[in-house]
Amino acid sequence: MAASDDLLDRFYSVIPAGGIGSRLWPLSRADAPKFLHDLSGSGQSLLRDTWDRLVPLSGEHRIMVVTGRAHRAAVEKQLPGLADANVVLESEPRESTAAIGLAAAILERREPGVIIGSFAADHVISQPERFREVVKQALVTADAGYITTIGITPTEPSIGFGYIHATKPLVVEGAPDAKIVDSFVEKPDLATAKKYVKSGSYLWNAGMFIARADTLLEQIGHSRPELLEGILKLAEAWDTPRRGAVVDQVWPELEKIAIDYTVAEPSALEGKLAVVPGNFTWDDVGDFASIAKLHSGGRKSELAILGKNARVLSDSSSGVVVSHSNRVISLIGVEDIVVVDTPDALLVTTSAHAQRVKAVVDALRLSGSGDVL
Amino acid sequence: MAASDDLLDRFYSVIPAGGIGSRLWPLSRADAPKFLHDLSGSGQSLLRDTWDRLVPLSGEHRIMVVTGRAHRAAVEKQLPGLADANVVLESEPRESTAAIGLAAAILERREPGVIIGSFAADHVISQPERFREVVKQALVTADAGYITTIGITPTEPSIGFGYIHATKPLVVEGAPDAKIVDSFVEKPDLATAKKYVKSGSYLWNAGMFIARADTLLEQIGHSRPELLEGILKLAEAWDTPRRGAVVDQVWPELEKIAIDYTVAEPSALEGKLAVVPGNFTWDDVGDFASIAKLHSGGRKSELAILGKNARVLSDSSSGVVVSHSNRVISLIGVEDIVVVDTPDALLVTTSAHAQRVKAVVDALRLSGSGDVL
Repeated sequence: MAASDDLLDRFYSVIPAGGIGSRLWPLSRADAPKFLHDLSGSGQSLLRDTWDRLVPLSGEHRIMVVTGRAHRAAVEKQLPGLADANVVLESEPRESTAAIGLAAAILERREPGVIIGSFAADHVISQPERFREVVKQALVTADAGYITTIGITPTEPSIGFGYIHATKPLVVEGAPDAKIVDSFVEKPDLATAKKYVKSGSYLWNAGMFIARADTLLEQIGHSRPELLEGILKLAEAWDTPRRGAVVDQVWPELEKIAIDYTVAEPSALEGKLAVVPGNFTWDDVGDFASIAKLHSGGRKSELAILGKNARVLSDSSSGVVVSHSNRVISLIGVEDIVVVDTPDALLVTTSAHAQRVKAVVDALRLSGSGDVL
Repeated sequence: MAASDDLLDRFYSVIPAGGIGSRLWPLSRADAPKFLHDLSGSGQSLLRDTWDRLVPLSGEHRIMVVTGRAHRAAVEKQLPGLADANVVLESEPRESTAAIGLAAAILERREPGVIIGSFAADHVISQPERFREVVKQALVTADAGYITTIGITPTEPSIGFGYIHATKPLVVEGAPDAKIVDSFVEKPDLATAKKYVKSGSYLWNAGMFIARADTLLEQIGHSRPELLEGILKLAEAWDTPRRGAVVDQVWPELEKIAIDYTVAEPSALEGKLAVVPGNFTWDDVGDFASIAKLHSGGRKSELAILGKNARVLSDSSSGVVVSHSNRVISLIGVEDIVVVDTPDALLVTTSAHAQRVKAVVDALRLSGSGDVL
């Protein structure tokens, strides 16, 4: 059932550490993005959690991180084991096709036949052993030529995630749980989500991809030939003295497009996308409501409190307080409340409105308050 | 209708500036009590508002302030016109009978026959001209031997104030609106409050007293002979070099009791308490709900924002934000919210729970967080 050692030897983990996490403002900022925060309660950053989860699969020396130039120091501090050659710095954000595609192209040049797995730096997974077993199945289907995603078995009819529809088993030895992906569906309404969960043939889209690097690049080339051309030009120069010059010239011109549109959806349409269902606990910690839920462990009568030196006095039995200042925070008679307290910005909202935080960030930018973003 | 110049010449204003205003924590603190804040939107402190309201009646040189030693500098900064001889410093709080009684006794020694008016330092009055006309009527009844209070004509069935019941006119020339007080009643429930307002014979108790100093002291002596004895001992030594020694010896031993119990209620029982109804806008700004109401001017669709450099981004149409830090404050989807943001403490509650803030202060004291009180 597990991948052979041979496959693991050819495996490389890629961690795109890019998104700021605007829905987690004012905790997440341009200079303190979501992946640098401890949102899981593990005592370390989500990025470090991700690293620790992957080391048993690929080893420290086979994990590549794609991040912004501004975050280099923070990332290296979090990951002392990260090899210099495995740091890919973006001069500016160009979205996931460019980020993952470049990693794939660099690694394919260094090591033809490499299988890469791309795992977001800012998700929470509670059972890493189960996660790794699922990745091992995905390695098998990836080696068989399928771009493979990991879908999460839903535990509730969430309206916060996209879904993967998969009905047909994929018969590949060593990957007994794999299926062919029929289609992707956007975040549904509650009634639809309930139907999905009941049907048993829908999984949460966790945005993880495992594929041979050459397969992935080929798929990008089908969708966006010019984008692939740019990626290959970068990869060719990457391990040479020309890297800087080529990056300056090519990177800013790359099309900004998510890998969902260039790889996942097209390959699903062509029947070339596999999915391995994961029965581990997963959360993308997309907003403060999600953090509240994660920390209360689903219990209804608990206020989640994050922050090392939090001084909170509250009679609330639900919601979340994030204390990143050392102030006393007092809550009286407010339920499902979200209070995020940082040295220069304060957010007060409710779990029900947590998704709207992103709009505030946009409004602050427009209103000249970019200093707190 | 107005008091003669003779009565105004004998008039002295007394401002007890004592209470912290615990229900306004974390805005009000031991070292920044309620009366030092701008809660009226006037651009200056409530204490200074009070002073400005009284100067046209008694003149700058005839206003005495009774306050804690710790507040001396702040009070003198607010009131540059305050004469040294008119600052009465409490070494520790001993409640209103001691504070007002001592002021009365000092002034009576300096100027026998003086009429004093005691006015809280931390109330909001919107029509000072009307206020002064009412005080002038009260001076007449005070000179006629009545301890006189000012009752506010209710504008709504408030459950936040005590009420004064008065049915019988008091026939004194120059005070056409004066009545004899039948009784005081504690804060009522809503149904009772509605009946009170409908009846037309109930007024809000605003805690203002105008009386001849000798009458007031006599009444204190009837209720609490020992307390009067202590007060007289202090007054006798006050303008002598013995003041310090006598204060150290006598003040801490004085009974702590509100003037409501030693003067107002007993004199009402004896038919010796008069009331002049005031038809000016008055508020004791007792909690944040009251501040929200005051600043929205009764309009329903307005969030009140206090704080000179407030940077608030909100979609709320009700409640109040007090910004005493320079942080960006963002509110999403919260109504009737109360957010009080100070450098070392944050309060989040709702208008409906505003009265419970005092309990938080008690809890913080017990839990060792006295540093933010």
